[in-house]
Amino acid sequence: MVKMTDYQGDAAKSPLELFEKLTEQGDKVRSLKSAKAEKAEIDAAVQLLLKLKVDYKKVTGQDYKAGCPPSENSLGSENGLAADGNNDEGDDEVNPWSVSTNNAKGVDYDKLIVRFGSSKIDQALVDRIEKVTGRKPHHFLRRGIFFSHRDMHQVLDTYEKHKSFFLYTGRGPSSQAMHVGHLIPFIFTKWLQDVFDIPLVVQMTDDEKYLWKDLTLEQCHQFAMENAKDIIACGFDVNKTFIFSDLDYMGASPQFYRNVVKIQKHVTFNQVKGIFGFTDSDCIGKISFPAIQAAPSFSNSFPHIFGDKKDIQCLIPCAIDQDPYFRMTRDVAPRIGYPKPALLHSTFFPALQGAQTKMSASDANSSIFLTDTAKQIKNKINKYAFSGGKDTVEEHRKYGGNVDVDVSFMYLTFFLEDDEKLEKIRQDYTSGALLTGELKKTLIETLQPIIAEHQERRKQVTDETVKRFMTPRPLNFNL
Amino acid sequence: MVKMTDYQGDAAKSPLELFEKLTEQGDKVRSLKSAKAEKAEIDAAVQLLLKLKVDYKKVTGQDYKAGCPPSENSLGSENGLAADGNNDEGDDEVNPWSVSTNNAKGVDYDKLIVRFGSSKIDQALVDRIEKVTGRKPHHFLRRGIFFSHRDMHQVLDTYEKHKSFFLYTGRGPSSQAMHVGHLIPFIFTKWLQDVFDIPLVVQMTDDEKYLWKDLTLEQCHQFAMENAKDIIACGFDVNKTFIFSDLDYMGASPQFYRNVVKIQKHVTFNQVKGIFGFTDSDCIGKISFPAIQAAPSFSNSFPHIFGDKKDIQCLIPCAIDQDPYFRMTRDVAPRIGYPKPALLHSTFFPALQGAQTKMSASDANSSIFLTDTAKQIKNKINKYAFSGGKDTVEEHRKYGGNVDVDVSFMYLTFFLEDDEKLEKIRQDYTSGALLTGELKKTLIETLQPIIAEHQERRKQVTDETVKRFMTPRPLNFNL
Repeated sequence: MVKMTDYQGDAAKSPLELFEKLTEQGDKVRSLKSAKAEKAEIDAAVQLLLKLKVDYKKVTGQDYKAGCPPSENSLGSENGLAADGNNDEGDDEVNPWSVSTNNAKGVDYDKLIVRFGSSKIDQALVDRIEKVTGRKPHHFLRRGIFFSHRDMHQVLDTYEKHKSFFLYTGRGPSSQAMHVGHLIPFIFTKWLQDVFDIPLVVQMTDDEKYLWKDLTLEQCHQFAMENAKDIIACGFDVNKTFIFSDLDYMGASPQFYRNVVKIQKHVTFNQVKGIFGFTDSDCIGKISFPAIQAAPSFSNSFPHIFGDKKDIQCLIPCAIDQDPYFRMTRDVAPRIGYPKPALLHSTFFPALQGAQTKMSASDANSSIFLTDTAKQIKNKINKYAFSGGKDTVEEHRKYGGNVDVDVSFMYLTFFLEDDEKLEKIRQDYTSGALLTGELKKTLIETLQPIIAEHQERRKQVTDETVKRFMTPRPLNFNL
Repeated sequence: MVKMTDYQGDAAKSPLELFEKLTEQGDKVRSLKSAKAEKAEIDAAVQLLLKLKVDYKKVTGQDYKAGCPPSENSLGSENGLAADGNNDEGDDEVNPWSVSTNNAKGVDYDKLIVRFGSSKIDQALVDRIEKVTGRKPHHFLRRGIFFSHRDMHQVLDTYEKHKSFFLYTGRGPSSQAMHVGHLIPFIFTKWLQDVFDIPLVVQMTDDEKYLWKDLTLEQCHQFAMENAKDIIACGFDVNKTFIFSDLDYMGASPQFYRNVVKIQKHVTFNQVKGIFGFTDSDCIGKISFPAIQAAPSFSNSFPHIFGDKKDIQCLIPCAIDQDPYFRMTRDVAPRIGYPKPALLHSTFFPALQGAQTKMSASDANSSIFLTDTAKQIKNKINKYAFSGGKDTVEEHRKYGGNVDVDVSFMYLTFFLEDDEKLEKIRQDYTSGALLTGELKKTLIETLQPIIAEHQERRKQVTDETVKRFMTPRPLNFNL
């Protein structure tokens, strides 16, 4: 047991010294655990770790986070003692309505793959995609932004046999404004549509938003229409893409409703309780909604595109928090005579303030919005982007920055396509050669034209264009 | 306490003597209760009643049922001791999926009115309907077949102010074949449509049948189409009537789905658990279905008929077992800005075997089907219709028959329009002047032409006619 006097000693140390001591002690706990040391020895080491964390908070006013040195704009955790890098004190929370972790590097995705029972997108799969498509894999694949999958090899088998498949992704339109993170699945889906040349359906779950949020049906539907413009601005081909609002399409396709009812017959309240955490106090709309998100996974939900074909394989690119819906869908599919949808899962796009949570559309300062001006982009990044750099230029030059927690660097992995340039930034920032201000400047100059071009394309999207995308009709495929 | 010797004495009595003694004791219990006698005295009387029932069962092999003398074709209760006329030992079960009672007279409807919190259709209301419409009230009203209501006075107030309302009723198409009992709500609805001259919507809940039964979507939809023909054959005016299958209309009307989602947002699982007895093992389709049966209560679910008007009062004629759906609907309505639907409740049409249960479409001998031949009708009534008569002609002439439990007489109250003739039959049967065979003959001669004429009208109903009724379109009303 650590004595009171030890506290006093540690409290006298500098934030950075304390940080180093904590990191050391964290490593010690982990190596003791992996060496399967005596329980008493591990307990003592954990005790000291916890005391050091208390001490650290006393000195810095912030919670200790592994890999995240003390810094002015580091975020205090609201959960008291923060988990260490190994997340020994609790799993990350990842479900369609909430994503949170205490780790500044973000969610532990390897753990999530194990927990969700999906497969890692390894180099072999990336290589195979390159071989099958004859195209250089998208940087989201090269960089592990799409990091997990289900049955992607099966999709490629199908494709190699010259049989088609289709893409399905979606958006919950909870507000008029989308942020850059919302574009990730659509940017990747557009690439998939281009390289595989296949149909795409995009579901706008305006009914879900009505059920979950304090919004009217009219608001949710209006948000769906506005968000559709941003999606279309990603460059989708109207001849290959069908976008639909649930509030419209549920009342426009008897075949879609039939699939919804089929799914609803084969899923019990016990199951959705287990998967989504619903309770007896939840409204019956929430309880039955998962069937509506599941239904587009089946090709005969879209007779205008696929006729009565019910066996066309579906591939769903989405953020990993949507996986619970599709675990349920994959469980139901064989019981109603349909193929299981395959999936490609992305990591979360971090908030400006750090990778602990997803960005929030309701907090204007947590993210770069697609409507932000060049100046707003610059100011937000300079003011809010969580930095992995040190407090002073001297310290930074000496210790270097931490790209694993630096939000500006993370954003560059999403938006800077040039691999070599990105690698150089990583090295220079880590060594201390590149300062935080310089890193931020690169991000600003990368994002400003991307957003400006998006805004330009969005301006071209008229209500008439939206109507064309959202009208049930045949697409240019002979399936 | 009754001693063992008493049993032996009673067991030696004849079934009819025992029956009379039991009836006497039942009356005694009731009068003690209504006189608010001492608890000890009531308890002693109930004890003796129970002992007599055990004895009665020992002698007859049948459960005692008040008002139902021993008879060869009386039904044994599966629940041990049967409840007496006052149903002191347990409530009748009445919900949309199960109706049962231990009383041969059928469900205790006065008790149901209290339990459900509805209002009795009293003579004053019948008189008011006559006054407002200028038409003789339908015999279903005159005879208490429609016996309970919610807000019917309000509907008449509206009507007197020359404001319109609309009718909504429905059918769960669980099989191709409908029986005469299924016609009751439609016969009455047709009368209401004629005397008030108002629009009618008829919901075919084929989705519900798919969720509850071991049937395919295609079967349920096919049953809906077939059943629609029988409904149309009741004589509805195509210019005033819209019939719809949920499986079709849910996928054909965004406005209908919007109302469904609105309702689903405002009802919790706890609520449907309380109202319908759902459990965690029920599928999510069942749990959310009540919103789909609720939605047609609101006029803007049918924009082709009512435009965007959401305040047109709805009147629902239905059997009382459907009331739970509309208690829920009436609870939700004001919270989503819609008027509460009014209701007219009917009693249940008894099975040939007796009034303990509703007829079952799956048991061919429990009912007269709309497809039965004249000969089948004759044979079924003669063979299966539970008789309130005595075992021998001599006993019958002496004691008379019991119209309260006689199914043939009950059927005549539904189908013999002539009040005087019906009253004469009641008196003659009760006195013993009319024998069971003669009563059955009257019923056979009443039903045969009704069914034959129905079959003739149904033959005229083509697929084209069905399509006209089931196409969303304006009706001939200027609302």
